[in-house]
Amino acid sequence: MNQIENSRPLSLKNVKIIDYFWKKELELIRNEVIPYQWKALNDQIEGANPSFCMHNFKVAGKILGKKSEKGKDYIANTYPTDVFVPMPEDMDHLEDRFYGFVFQDSDFYKWIEAVGYSLIQYPDPQLEQLADQAIDIVCAAQQPDGYLDTYYIINNPEHIFTDLCSYHELYCFGHLAEGAVAYYQATGKDKLLKAAQRYADYITSRIGPEEGKLKGYPGHEIAEMALVRLYEQTSEDKYLKLSKYFIDERGKRPYYFDIEKKKEMTEGDTSLRYHYHQAHLPVREQEEAVGHAVRAVYLYSGMADIARITKDEILYDACEKLWNNIVDKKLYITGGIGGTHIGEAFSFNYDLPNDTAYAETCASIGLMFFARRMLEIKPDSKYANVMERALYNGILSGMSLDGKSFFYVNPLEVLPEACHKDERKSHVKPVRQKWFGCACCPPNIARLLCSIGSYAYTETNDTLFVHLYMGSQITKIFESSEFNINIYSSFPWNGKVSVEVKTKSDAYFTIALRIPDWCEDYKLIGAQKAEKYVKDGYLYIKKCWVDGELIEIEFPMKVKFLEANPHVRENIGKVAVMRGPLVYCMEEADNGKDLHLLELSDEPKTEVHFVEKMGEDIAVITTAGRRRIISDDNLNLLYNEYKKPIYDNITIQWIPYYTWANRGEGEMRVWIQT
Amino acid sequence: MNQIENSRPLSLKNVKIIDYFWKKELELIRNEVIPYQWKALNDQIEGANPSFCMHNFKVAGKILGKKSEKGKDYIANTYPTDVFVPMPEDMDHLEDRFYGFVFQDSDFYKWIEAVGYSLIQYPDPQLEQLADQAIDIVCAAQQPDGYLDTYYIINNPEHIFTDLCSYHELYCFGHLAEGAVAYYQATGKDKLLKAAQRYADYITSRIGPEEGKLKGYPGHEIAEMALVRLYEQTSEDKYLKLSKYFIDERGKRPYYFDIEKKKEMTEGDTSLRYHYHQAHLPVREQEEAVGHAVRAVYLYSGMADIARITKDEILYDACEKLWNNIVDKKLYITGGIGGTHIGEAFSFNYDLPNDTAYAETCASIGLMFFARRMLEIKPDSKYANVMERALYNGILSGMSLDGKSFFYVNPLEVLPEACHKDERKSHVKPVRQKWFGCACCPPNIARLLCSIGSYAYTETNDTLFVHLYMGSQITKIFESSEFNINIYSSFPWNGKVSVEVKTKSDAYFTIALRIPDWCEDYKLIGAQKAEKYVKDGYLYIKKCWVDGELIEIEFPMKVKFLEANPHVRENIGKVAVMRGPLVYCMEEADNGKDLHLLELSDEPKTEVHFVEKMGEDIAVITTAGRRRIISDDNLNLLYNEYKKPIYDNITIQWIPYYTWANRGEGEMRVWIQT
Repeated sequence: MNQIENSRPLSLKNVKIIDYFWKKELELIRNEVIPYQWKALNDQIEGANPSFCMHNFKVAGKILGKKSEKGKDYIANTYPTDVFVPMPEDMDHLEDRFYGFVFQDSDFYKWIEAVGYSLIQYPDPQLEQLADQAIDIVCAAQQPDGYLDTYYIINNPEHIFTDLCSYHELYCFGHLAEGAVAYYQATGKDKLLKAAQRYADYITSRIGPEEGKLKGYPGHEIAEMALVRLYEQTSEDKYLKLSKYFIDERGKRPYYFDIEKKKEMTEGDTSLRYHYHQAHLPVREQEEAVGHAVRAVYLYSGMADIARITKDEILYDACEKLWNNIVDKKLYITGGIGGTHIGEAFSFNYDLPNDTAYAETCASIGLMFFARRMLEIKPDSKYANVMERALYNGILSGMSLDGKSFFYVNPLEVLPEACHKDERKSHVKPVRQKWFGCACCPPNIARLLCSIGSYAYTETNDTLFVHLYMGSQITKIFESSEFNINIYSSFPWNGKVSVEVKTKSDAYFTIALRIPDWCEDYKLIGAQKAEKYVKDGYLYIKKCWVDGELIEIEFPMKVKFLEANPHVRENIGKVAVMRGPLVYCMEEADNGKDLHLLELSDEPKTEVHFVEKMGEDIAVITTAGRRRIISDDNLNLLYNEYKKPIYDNITIQWIPYYTWANRGEGEMRVWIQT
Repeated sequence: MNQIENSRPLSLKNVKIIDYFWKKELELIRNEVIPYQWKALNDQIEGANPSFCMHNFKVAGKILGKKSEKGKDYIANTYPTDVFVPMPEDMDHLEDRFYGFVFQDSDFYKWIEAVGYSLIQYPDPQLEQLADQAIDIVCAAQQPDGYLDTYYIINNPEHIFTDLCSYHELYCFGHLAEGAVAYYQATGKDKLLKAAQRYADYITSRIGPEEGKLKGYPGHEIAEMALVRLYEQTSEDKYLKLSKYFIDERGKRPYYFDIEKKKEMTEGDTSLRYHYHQAHLPVREQEEAVGHAVRAVYLYSGMADIARITKDEILYDACEKLWNNIVDKKLYITGGIGGTHIGEAFSFNYDLPNDTAYAETCASIGLMFFARRMLEIKPDSKYANVMERALYNGILSGMSLDGKSFFYVNPLEVLPEACHKDERKSHVKPVRQKWFGCACCPPNIARLLCSIGSYAYTETNDTLFVHLYMGSQITKIFESSEFNINIYSSFPWNGKVSVEVKTKSDAYFTIALRIPDWCEDYKLIGAQKAEKYVKDGYLYIKKCWVDGELIEIEFPMKVKFLEANPHVRENIGKVAVMRGPLVYCMEEADNGKDLHLLELSDEPKTEVHFVEKMGEDIAVITTAGRRRIISDDNLNLLYNEYKKPIYDNITIQWIPYYTWANRGEGEMRVWIQT
C-alpha cells in the first residue's frame, strides 16, 4: 500500500454526467425523487408511512427555545422504551412529541446530501433556497453544547449516549456529516458543516480514550467514514482520531454494548449478539463478513478510509480479506448482499437463497462505498467490477422506473403468493413501496446516483481512472493546467466507449480504462504512440495527448450464461443470463405463470432486441427454452411415479433485472434450470 | 355415510402384535421409552430439559390440602404472565411453585395412555403399580369441584378458563381423558377415568350454550375427540354434546378468543390470528387445512368423530375436503405436514420446502388419528395409504433407533451448517434431542405405537379390515363366537402377507385387505370359493372360512422413483426413492458431503441389499448416479461462464428415511436431482 499513490475520487465539480442512461436517472432524482422525498420528510405523501423527520426537528428547536426559559419542564414525554414511537391517531394535529424511529433525523441528512450533489450538477436556486430553510430548521435544534439528535433532545437529554448500541445517535451524526460536507462542497455554505463539526466536537468530548469518557462506538456504523470525510474537508485531526478510535474499539472485550446495557450474556443470546454489530472480533482480526449487511459494509468503508490515510497495512489486509469473503462467497449475482432477513444480515458462506434473499438496496450501496474506497487504495478492477454489478442491478432495482416507489429487499426470485401467505417471505415485496417507515433506501439511492461521478472516476496527479463507463465531461487538473476529457458511452446497452481529450497544450498523462470482467476481448482504436499496458484489470494508456485526440475502445456485449459456484446449493443446475453489466430476469408478464417450469434449451439460441418497453429503451433478450407440460394424470396427485418430463418449446423473454416489477405484481426469476 | 355401517377400531385386547419389525418398536417403547419418560416426568434425565410434570401435580396436591385449612393463603405465586415458567436455578431445591409450560400436565397423561396400551400387550405388575401410584398423585391434585389443571391450581384459581386461547386447560383435559380411558381399558381401574369424568363435568358446568356459561372452545384442540372417547366409554351423552359444542362454536364471530382477551383486531395481526386456531371460518365451511398443523388434525379428528356419531353429512363433507386438501396439496412424501415453522403450521398449497420443513412428528401422528377416523366412517384405502406413509416415515423418524432421542421437526433435507448458522433453520435439528421442554412428540410416539393395533385393524360385525400389514394374532368376535386370525408379514421389507384363520366351526365373514397405493399388481393365493371384489382400494374376501385356512397375498415391493406434482416448486426436476411403504434418503455417512452435487442417472440401475446397519436389519438401496465434479477453475469465483457440468459416475446409497441421523451429524436429502 505504501508504494502506491492513492487515487482520489474525482470532485463532482469536475465531472458532468451527460450520459443518456444516467442523465435520465439523475433527472429523475432531481425532478421526482428529491421533491418527493422532501414531501415525505414533511409527511405529505398520501398512503405512505410518515417520516416525522422535519416535525421532530421543529419540535426539538422549540424545546431549545423554551428550555432557556423554563428548564426541562417542556419535555413532553417520558423516555420511550422502544426505538420506534408510533404515529398518532390524528396526523393533522401532531403533538410536540417525537414520532417515528430513533434514526428519523437521518432522513433529512441523506436528502440534503443528495440535494448537494444535485446542485453541483444542476444549479437550482429554488431548491437551494428550500434546502437553506430546512437547514435553518435543523440547526435551530442543535443544543448549545453541540448535541443534535431530536430523539433525545425531545425525550430525555439525560439519556444521551446511554445506548449507542441501538439508538442510532452516532449513525445520525454520520449522515449529518456526510450531508453537511456535500452541501458545503456544492454551495460553499457552511452552516450545516459547522453544525456537524460542533456535534463532532461534542462527541469527542464525551467518547474517547481519555479517562472519564465513554469507551463506545456506533451501534450502526457510518460515523467512521463520515468523520474521515469531515477530516478531509476540514483537516481537523481530531475527527480522524475519533474515527480511528471507533474502529479500534470495536470487537474488544468486555463488550461495550453489554457495559452500557448492564447486561450479562444469557442463554437466549445468539451469535447475532456480537456478529450483528461486527463486534465478534477486533476488526483487524476479522476475515468473514457477518451480521447486518449495511452496517458491515459501512464499517469496512470506514476501515478502508483509515487504512488508506494512516497507511495501516494490517487494517488494509483485514479489508482485503473481508472484501474477498463477500465477493467470493456472499454476493448475489445482482450485487446484492445479505442472504437472510434475520438481522438483515449476511448468511453463512455460499448461502444465497434466491427467494428469501434480503439483498437490501442500501447494502449494495454500502458495497459501492467500500469498493470505491478500496479503489482509492489500489486501482484493481476487481473492486470496480463489483461496483458496476451492484450499481446496474441490485441498486437500480431498488427504484421504480418512474422514481416513485422503492424496494428495500431485492430478491432474485418472487412468487407473489408466497410474499402474501408465507411469513418467512413477508420481507419480500412483489411490488415496490411508496415510502417506508424505516426509509433508508430511497434517499440512499438518491445520494448515490447524484454522486455517481465520484464512483465512476478516481484520479491521481497523473492518471485518470475510468471505473464505470458513462457519458461525461471531465475536467482533469494536471500540473495546474486543466484538460477536458469527454467520454462517450452507451452503456449498459452497447460496449463502445470513446474518449476525447481537449487540451490547449499537449499533455503527458495516463488514462486507465477498466476492462470489465464480462469482456474477454476488447478492441482499442487510436492511442498511437502510447505506452499501453494492462495491470490489475485496467488498460493504462500513457501518452502525450494532443488536442482533439480521440480513442475508441469496444467491449463487446455478448449474451452470457453464468453458473454459480457449485457450493451455492440454491443455484445448482441453474444459469443466469447477463449481457454486459446487466443481469437479466424473467417476468410473468412476458413468460406467463409458473416460471419454475421453464428451462433453458441445451444450446439456447439467443437474440437481443432493442425495444421500447415500460417506457424505456432497453435491450430485451430472448432465448430458446422449454416449458414443462403438466399432464392431466400428474395434476391431481401430489406424488406420482417419475416420468421423463415432456416440454413445449418456447421462446423465453428476459428483461434487465433492474426493470422488474414495473408492470404490477407477478412472478420473477433470475436463475433458470438448464 | 348413512348407508355404510361404520367400522370401529379393533380393541387392543383383541390384537397382539407379534411382528418382527413392530415388536422391536413396542419393546423399545416398553423397555426404554416408558421408563425413560417416567424419569423425564420426574426431572431425572441428565442434560435434558426438566418436565416438572410430577412436581407440579405434587405441589397442586399440597395446595389442596393446605387450602382446606387456610383458604387461599397458600398460593405461592402471583399469576405468571407467560405460558412458560422458567426453571429455578437450583434443581435440587424446587420450591412449591409451578414450573414449565402451562401444558406440562399433559406429559403425564400421554405417558399413562402409553402405559395403558403397553399393559394390554405386556402385562407388567411393577409398571402398573408405578402407574397407580402416579395416578394417586395426579388425582390428589383434583379440586373438589372437579377442576384439574396444576397451572391454575397453583398459580391462581381465579383465572381458570379466562384464557382458553393460550393456556391449554382444555388440551390437558383432552389428554387426561384419552389417558384415563386407555388405562381403564387396560386395567379395569377407574380412578383416573372418574377423575376425567369429574373434570369433564366441571367443564360442562362452565362452558356451553346455556346462559351464564362461557361460549368458548379449546385453543389447542384435542378435547373434541377425547370427549367422544369418554362418551363411547361411558355412554354419557353430555360428553358428546360438549364435544359437538366445541366444534360448532369454532370459527363463529365475534371471535371468542378476542372476547376473552378483550382484544380488538389490530394492524399487526396477521392471518395467523384466526387461521392458527382453525377459527377463520365455521368448521363446516372450511376447505383448506390451515394454521398449527397438530391442532388442525386434532380438530379434524374430532370433527370426523362427531360426523360419524351424529351422521352429520355436512361436517363429514368438510372433513373430506380438508383431508383432500392435505393429501393433494400439503403433504410431504414422508407423511409429514406443516410446511412452515411460523406457527408450526401448514403453508399455502404446494408450498413444501424440504430444508425448512416443520413436519412435526406429532402432526403426522395427528394425521393418523384423522385417517383412522375417516376409515371408521368409510373404508377407503386413500386414508390408510396415508396412515402407512406417515407411520413408516415421518413418525418413526421422530425417534432414534435406540428409543432415547427424538425429533420434533422432520426435515427432508439437512445441511448441519445451516442448522447451526442460519436462524431461519434453527428449528431444524441435525441430530435428535434427548427431551424437549415442550415434550409433546416423544410421549405421542409412545402412545401411538403402543396402540398401533387399533390403527392396523378396524372391524364391522362381519368384516375385518386390514389397513396396515404387521404380524398379529387377532381375535374376531362374530355372532358371539370367537375366531382367531393370524397375520404373518415381514413389512416393510417384503410384501408377502399370510392370513390364517383358526375357527372351531366354519364361519362366514369377510376379510378386507388394503391394496397399498405403491403396488400395482398383487398376487393372491388361496381363498378358493370366495366372493372376491375390490372396492375403494380393498380386496374383500367374503367366504365361509374353515379352520386352518391360509391365504397368501403378495404386494411386490419394487424400488420406485417418485416425482412431486410440478406445482411443488421445491421438487421440480427431482425424484424421491421409495420401496414399499418406505421413503428413502441419502446420508453423508454413506455418500460423502455435498449431497446437492449428486444426481440420479438417467436409467438408474438399482439394487436392494438386506444388511445389518446401525444395529438394524434393513433394506439398503443402491442406485446408479453421478456426482458433479467441482473443477479448479470454478472453485474460486462465485460466478463463472456456464459450462456443461462434468461428473463422476458413482453408486448412491439410500437408507430408509426413518433411520436417518442415527450416526451423528451429517447432511441428508430425500429428493435428488435427475
